[in-house]
Amino acid sequence: MDMTTPIGVWLADELDQVSLVMSDHLKNKHKEVAAICEELAAYKGKMLRPTMLLLSWKSVSSCETTPEAVRVAAGVVELIHLATLVHDDILDESDLRRGAQTINSLFGNEAAVMLGDYLLSSAFLLCSTIKNPELNLLLGGVTNTLCAGELVQLSRRNDMDLDLESYFQIIHDKTASLIAASCEMGAVLGCGSGREIKALKEFGSSVGMAFQIKDDLLDLLGERAIIGKPAGRDLDKGKLTLPIITMLVENPSLKDGFQKIMSDGDRDALSALLHSTGAISSAFDRVSKTVDGAVSGVEEIFENESSKQLCALAKQLKSSV
Amino acid sequence: MDMTTPIGVWLADELDQVSLVMSDHLKNKHKEVAAICEELAAYKGKMLRPTMLLLSWKSVSSCETTPEAVRVAAGVVELIHLATLVHDDILDESDLRRGAQTINSLFGNEAAVMLGDYLLSSAFLLCSTIKNPELNLLLGGVTNTLCAGELVQLSRRNDMDLDLESYFQIIHDKTASLIAASCEMGAVLGCGSGREIKALKEFGSSVGMAFQIKDDLLDLLGERAIIGKPAGRDLDKGKLTLPIITMLVENPSLKDGFQKIMSDGDRDALSALLHSTGAISSAFDRVSKTVDGAVSGVEEIFENESSKQLCALAKQLKSSV
Repeated sequence: MDMTTPIGVWLADELDQVSLVMSDHLKNKHKEVAAICEELAAYKGKMLRPTMLLLSWKSVSSCETTPEAVRVAAGVVELIHLATLVHDDILDESDLRRGAQTINSLFGNEAAVMLGDYLLSSAFLLCSTIKNPELNLLLGGVTNTLCAGELVQLSRRNDMDLDLESYFQIIHDKTASLIAASCEMGAVLGCGSGREIKALKEFGSSVGMAFQIKDDLLDLLGERAIIGKPAGRDLDKGKLTLPIITMLVENPSLKDGFQKIMSDGDRDALSALLHSTGAISSAFDRVSKTVDGAVSGVEEIFENESSKQLCALAKQLKSSV
Repeated sequence: MDMTTPIGVWLADELDQVSLVMSDHLKNKHKEVAAICEELAAYKGKMLRPTMLLLSWKSVSSCETTPEAVRVAAGVVELIHLATLVHDDILDESDLRRGAQTINSLFGNEAAVMLGDYLLSSAFLLCSTIKNPELNLLLGGVTNTLCAGELVQLSRRNDMDLDLESYFQIIHDKTASLIAASCEMGAVLGCGSGREIKALKEFGSSVGMAFQIKDDLLDLLGERAIIGKPAGRDLDKGKLTLPIITMLVENPSLKDGFQKIMSDGDRDALSALLHSTGAISSAFDRVSKTVDGAVSGVEEIFENESSKQLCALAKQLKSSV
């Protein structure tokens, strides 16, 4: 069952309000800044992080109406995400994002560096308006983790000896940590118990891991139509992802062959090798198992409409595309 | 009278403690992150912003010993400053900073983007540990101003019609705002009155303006030995600064001649033109007057050892180098 539409419809109004919080907050008296911020519309995606924050809040809270602080926090995590996209596009030298031109391709790398900083700063300022010191600490902690994850990934580019543990740590830090923090913030704002907060944070972490493994798989398999950006970018930038690491760990003798394929740029041979060694199906299995673990963790202590929507959202990652 | 040494000696212990707060806070479990942070030692300067914060706190507070929160806040403003240096060096394509290799030249632009983000994030996290919501709001506000200032400056590169008002707004936003916020934070943490906080914030703003005008002058005059980085960088990057704007505003007929000099890259002719039109001495005058205004503002309501040190610090900017 495709749950995109139901969740979308259910939360559409609230997500619109979150978008409004963000656009109001990004208004700037300088027309030059306002102009570049307007181009961010093209970066808008499914708003996964605000969705997870809102659903986590609803899973623990008994309030009928969503308080302003929850919408604001949802805007904060999306602003952090936007900042990482703008800076990632510089790192990846990407010209396209969701089929539209990136900030770096429109305004140059320099403006993209500064816009990313402006978005980071705006997220912290917006978070500060909630005047909940715990949220500020949580946000600062997760952005530190996120940046450290990116730095480690950069330093391990083209490293054929990257092991599974390091890969999982990198994707936890750079991706899963923010999704986990989104769930945690929702649960904290909903005054959840320690056990509830922990369960939702772990759920977010697992969903984030599954999400990144899937994203890496789509990049490797070249599903440009789905990802809205050029495929194969990870390998172009020397980023080894799960299927390749699994293949090299389980078949060390293939390392030379892999390096030859890489220097020849023979993507068809690579794809054949990854499929024949079972590395692709093994990665899809890992996504499924991670999602199953996430779902059972939430089902163990929650049973309400919102927690079911969270689980449905997670299960979408199990589809083959 | 050169007050560098007296202030340095007087505050040396406290500034060492601020440095310790920063280095402790930047410790990271990932050796890759720790390694790149170590290179930041070369970025360490005179710690103007922590100095201004500490002296502002001392100007209003009657406490004998400096509380931890004040040292932490001093570390926060220096971390923000470090983040801007790391990202500025990418924008300016600088290889040298204080005579040492920049992060971008050592590790590449990508790592420098991420390190700057990590420093920004670390500053916000450190500020959050003080658990004073007012400080978080103040910090978020000033970093927004700072990034917006950089974005406006970028968009006005090579703009021969840049007027004085826009130039002053840009240097206020990108430089003076953080120095003003440093003074303001010190005064807020020292529980100063509204009038004291406002006076110290305005003092910081004026000192910041004078500091940036002076810095721009040194770049234009080519005092490489003093600034520790290649001179003439502003013009290379299309940044028009006070002497040039003044000259073009007061002598519009020189615009064509200036553009020819620029396209010929004839720095000697430029220097002669700037001196002969009085644009250089006019900019030095502006530094002096701005400093005098700052000093009289502080002297009007403070009279203690720390406020005198603040004024002495400001007066150093009036020297011709």
